[in-house]
Amino acid sequence: MAEIHHQVGIKASPEQIYQLLSTDLGLSQWWTNDISGAGEVGSIIQFRFNGAGPDFLVTNLIPNKLVQWKHSGNMPDEWMGTEIEFHLVVSKNQTLVRFKHARWQEPSDFMAHCSTKWAVFLLSLKEALECGTGKPFPNDIQIDHS
Amino acid sequence: MAEIHHQVGIKASPEQIYQLLSTDLGLSQWWTNDISGAGEVGSIIQFRFNGAGPDFLVTNLIPNKLVQWKHSGNMPDEWMGTEIEFHLVVSKNQTLVRFKHARWQEPSDFMAHCSTKWAVFLLSLKEALECGTGKPFPNDIQIDHS
Repeated sequence: MAEIHHQVGIKASPEQIYQLLSTDLGLSQWWTNDISGAGEVGSIIQFRFNGAGPDFLVTNLIPNKLVQWKHSGNMPDEWMGTEIEFHLVVSKNQTLVRFKHARWQEPSDFMAHCSTKWAVFLLSLKEALECGTGKPFPNDIQIDHS
Repeated sequence: MAEIHHQVGIKASPEQIYQLLSTDLGLSQWWTNDISGAGEVGSIIQFRFNGAGPDFLVTNLIPNKLVQWKHSGNMPDEWMGTEIEFHLVVSKNQTLVRFKHARWQEPSDFMAHCSTKWAVFLLSLKEALECGTGKPFPNDIQIDHS
């Protein structure tokens, strides 16, 4: 099994960050503008990019500390069975967001693409909180010309 | 063992990208402005950030295709034994840079930090080639407030 790991430090409280990880309005500020379904454990969040995109089942929520999702639905295939985690840790002058996208079958080229893209979106999360405006799809930073 | 993987697609030829991965002048355009020692296999490249930073031994070079380095020197400790690879693959309308930083002892918080930072520097490489100016240290995008 392969894993993607990232960490960013944000000048915001865990409460502020958790809001952007656990609600449709919050998620739409940094990942994609087309999001629905975010809610309690058991909710299925639908992230859409030009009409297509992954679903995630909310599997665990510890307010202001932890958000865990599990892939749900049928696309993209390589995401099947993968799990995503956002872990918030208060540090001296910032809150660290420790991100993990785990249980990939292998470290494929698509996983490498997603790893870079996750970094872009986590920096968008940081920007949304620190500057007031993130770069969610379709205004996200492009990492290739596909 | 844990690994970092990234992939970016750049509108540039493998020759242009290879130049930025294998020479002091090229590396200084996207990673850090203080670089010395880049050269043939066996060279030790010294990357410095405010006077400190890692060394890498050049272990393999296939012009316009592959660059491999192995950590050399004493800092940071967690990089000991790790290996870095840039693999260039021509695609339809771009050249893909497949990046790997392998042989981490464990997926530590420091590895997560480095994963995000590598994404930032690979996007700096892309920008240097496509726009003429990258964002090498000390002008690199900050991912935290440490």
